[in-house]
Amino acid sequence: MQQVRRFWGWGVEGEGPTAAQQRKLAETLTARFGGDPADPIPPPTINEIDLRAPRIVPPAALASVCTDDPFERAGHTYGKSFRDVWRALHRDFSCPPDLVAIPRSEADIVALLDWCSDERIAAVPYGGGSSVVGGVECDVGDEYRGAVSIDMRALDRVLEIDRVSRAARIQAGVYGPALEDQLRPHGLTLRHYPQSFEFSTLGGWLATRSGGHYATLHTHIDDFVESIRAITPRGEWESRRLPGSGAGPSPDRALLGSEGILGVITEAWMRLQDRPTFRASATARFPTFEHAAEAARAISQSGLYPANCRVLDAAEAGLTGADDSGTALLLLAFESADHPLGPWITRAVECARDHGGEVADDQIAVRGGSNTGAGEGARDGAAGSWRNAFIRAPYTRDALVGLGAISETFETACTWDAFPALHEGITSAVLDTAEAAGAWPAVVTCRFTHVYPDGPAPYFTVLARGTEPEQLAQWEAVKAAAGAALTKHGGTITHHHAVGRDHRRWYDRQRPEPFAAALRAAKAAVDPAGILNPGVIVDPADVIGLPGPAPGPGSV
Amino acid sequence: MQQVRRFWGWGVEGEGPTAAQQRKLAETLTARFGGDPADPIPPPTINEIDLRAPRIVPPAALASVCTDDPFERAGHTYGKSFRDVWRALHRDFSCPPDLVAIPRSEADIVALLDWCSDERIAAVPYGGGSSVVGGVECDVGDEYRGAVSIDMRALDRVLEIDRVSRAARIQAGVYGPALEDQLRPHGLTLRHYPQSFEFSTLGGWLATRSGGHYATLHTHIDDFVESIRAITPRGEWESRRLPGSGAGPSPDRALLGSEGILGVITEAWMRLQDRPTFRASATARFPTFEHAAEAARAISQSGLYPANCRVLDAAEAGLTGADDSGTALLLLAFESADHPLGPWITRAVECARDHGGEVADDQIAVRGGSNTGAGEGARDGAAGSWRNAFIRAPYTRDALVGLGAISETFETACTWDAFPALHEGITSAVLDTAEAAGAWPAVVTCRFTHVYPDGPAPYFTVLARGTEPEQLAQWEAVKAAAGAALTKHGGTITHHHAVGRDHRRWYDRQRPEPFAAALRAAKAAVDPAGILNPGVIVDPADVIGLPGPAPGPGSV
Repeated sequence: MQQVRRFWGWGVEGEGPTAAQQRKLAETLTARFGGDPADPIPPPTINEIDLRAPRIVPPAALASVCTDDPFERAGHTYGKSFRDVWRALHRDFSCPPDLVAIPRSEADIVALLDWCSDERIAAVPYGGGSSVVGGVECDVGDEYRGAVSIDMRALDRVLEIDRVSRAARIQAGVYGPALEDQLRPHGLTLRHYPQSFEFSTLGGWLATRSGGHYATLHTHIDDFVESIRAITPRGEWESRRLPGSGAGPSPDRALLGSEGILGVITEAWMRLQDRPTFRASATARFPTFEHAAEAARAISQSGLYPANCRVLDAAEAGLTGADDSGTALLLLAFESADHPLGPWITRAVECARDHGGEVADDQIAVRGGSNTGAGEGARDGAAGSWRNAFIRAPYTRDALVGLGAISETFETACTWDAFPALHEGITSAVLDTAEAAGAWPAVVTCRFTHVYPDGPAPYFTVLARGTEPEQLAQWEAVKAAAGAALTKHGGTITHHHAVGRDHRRWYDRQRPEPFAAALRAAKAAVDPAGILNPGVIVDPADVIGLPGPAPGPGSV
Repeated sequence: MQQVRRFWGWGVEGEGPTAAQQRKLAETLTARFGGDPADPIPPPTINEIDLRAPRIVPPAALASVCTDDPFERAGHTYGKSFRDVWRALHRDFSCPPDLVAIPRSEADIVALLDWCSDERIAAVPYGGGSSVVGGVECDVGDEYRGAVSIDMRALDRVLEIDRVSRAARIQAGVYGPALEDQLRPHGLTLRHYPQSFEFSTLGGWLATRSGGHYATLHTHIDDFVESIRAITPRGEWESRRLPGSGAGPSPDRALLGSEGILGVITEAWMRLQDRPTFRASATARFPTFEHAAEAARAISQSGLYPANCRVLDAAEAGLTGADDSGTALLLLAFESADHPLGPWITRAVECARDHGGEVADDQIAVRGGSNTGAGEGARDGAAGSWRNAFIRAPYTRDALVGLGAISETFETACTWDAFPALHEGITSAVLDTAEAAGAWPAVVTCRFTHVYPDGPAPYFTVLARGTEPEQLAQWEAVKAAAGAALTKHGGTITHHHAVGRDHRRWYDRQRPEPFAAALRAAKAAVDPAGILNPGVIVDPADVIGLPGPAPGPGSV
């Protein structure tokens, strides 16, 4: 049976916590935060939603590509941020796309962009809709006659495989599982597993510089790109398929992170992996988070390159069921399709122990050499518990929204020298803000999703009691406090959640001003009508109707 | 005693082949190619050069920053390509910079760019002047009132070191050896050793996406960048210092490869390495180049990440003295500051043997654990011979120019599936062209400088007999044949030599047209007067005096 996507929140109907599990979740919240168990807000049905009438009508040639079906329009109104789900649960769909377009070919996309450019209609590229930063919204303002959400799901095929170079040409609209299904018969895998894997697409990963499976080395989807093809209002943008190049600034790096403002990504040649057959893993326990962080630093600087090198603080380990002993954890794993990993895990465990980590010898697993038991299935213990919680998390978050709680995650990256102050600064800023906003008690946990030789990518989870009718304002206060604190302490506003509309104010402060000017000009050159995803990365007013050329030298 | 840089060619006075060695080289050429040994063209002295008078006078505030000294102006007229040295040996310095500026601060650079913008004077950033692609020339045409070469050599300090994150803030004008000298007391190293190491700068490496020491994984300088600071005519461009980020398109990647057209790079925070203390190496011999290439592919896809994985064809091995047995070589080396490398080299040798490589057990060296003998000194056998030839090569090339020979190197990268046809296509195109041009006999050799999981970076050397007065035209024919062939066969016009002016025609075909439009617009936004390195990457005419806004949608 075909699964039905939820139009109001994460995932598909029938998944996520059952009514009984939601009651249990409410009781857990009460036990932790006090108060009475809340009754969950019932999810909306599509018939409850009163969508405004579409303001635009597609030309005849595009009629079969576009739909005004309410379920599609409601389902494309938001991404999946806390605010998105809150608004959906509160039946607020006030700015839906006027139409949802589902192109079946690049020619359809060319026609869509031509039409939108001619009629000044916003064109918002849409992959899986998993944005948590307002990246796919159609609330574009009155400068536009309407908005079309361009859903890429029909372009979902692996078109070509080069086995010798381990690469494939892949359409951008393919979802994670369908992509892996098409690669598996060839013994290949992209091995890109963001938390959104089930409900996000290759094109979305590329447009947002998605963070993936590998905790070290190849941390972002960027690292697996050979070439990208996109349709811009000015024509086709296709880079040459290359393993490496030094010919000018990289055209691919200009599209990576462009979040749909330069063009609609339609295909990419991606570097693939052989399916791993060797695996080694260990879990180390540390008396403090700082000890675990130091061990992670040593390992990140060792040149061992583990696939997993995730640090969980004690609260994170407890919340996710990975460990409730009050210790911080370091989850280590290596994988390979080429060689046994004994020497690798042995040295990594030595690093962990050098920094105060406890690793029982029987908790060091080294497997492989055949295809059995070495792949994704071989996850158990703390790492397995953590991974299960990781996959379930978005469903749980939606349930928490419906129970009136504040639940938010945000992430960054900073250099090692900056981390202690950043960690302390963010934690206290968020807790102080939550308390001041009445979202109290609150807890902030931290883990490292990725680590680099020069710094970690810390990921924070906030859970707090919310109150009605302040819940959304409380979330906004927490989100703003987090953004301000991580910016102040030298972090990036996002390591892998993207910028969208929600991170703009901090992003604008982070980027160099001449680069912003260059980016606005670049966008105006390829999207002169300024139709593509207005408000993301740059403001439409900076692109369309600019008052003449840029200021001359010395004016800044 | 201070070394004196040659104004007409590679390196410093007193280095390179002696008169006796040049005679020997002439005899070797004769033995290989026939004809009579040529008398070398004597290098010019500065008094022989008749430089045109400077067309511009610096304002008083910049008088102490600028010089019109003939030695400086002649020395900044060219890079170090075959054509550059040929012209210098033939006393042709017809387009020198009018002035050489040697800024001592960013304020000097701001003032220089303001002056150049106001007066429409070309400003050509200059690092070590090792460009082989016409990247630092001042032949900018009559649209400009003059040209200033901005030599960054006075900005040569390591300003700050973050030992815990293993990073340093470094001024762009520092040369390779001086950089390593400043890092050594901290136990750190950038380990970026392009062939030009002695005579090139950090800023030059960044601007040209220089290829470095590591044959796998971190192949380009790009991979070691935390942040870059540049002065543009529109103000300071400085990215946040971060180990990783997903916040929009990377501002650093826009400067990397920009070759001075967007701004003058003044500083960068760079990721460093601990000085390696463990080393393992081996040399494998193969019956054919194809066998060696297959072994390199297997190793590049193994996840072992050797620091050296260089393939030499039999002719290359013979020419460089690495091996004259007529076999192809694979030079393998691992290095680490963290762990012994026995398991790594053992598995890599296994891969080599699986593909027909012969490796004597006593040719597998595993060293380390202390600081002695594991660092750069530990190079012997075939790898050591090859490395010595590598370092000497630019001096030898200059001598070959003076002996009337054709000597050229060019490089690319392509996917593994494309390599066999590319190799065959380039070799035959170059040989056919050389013969047709009368540059005969000729030999083409190939090595891999870097390898990726999805393809190699092949590097070609052409050596041919030249004839007078056709020598330069013969070289141009060979260069054009190489560019056309590697473009035709799916390679990039450059993996690490940059684009400059010499690679423009192929680069323009390689890059996506909407990206070119975006790049031109970006340049116009940060350099509205179009003064920075005109003709490199984009044409000045596309930036200054553009006829109105970009064409609308549907026009392409």
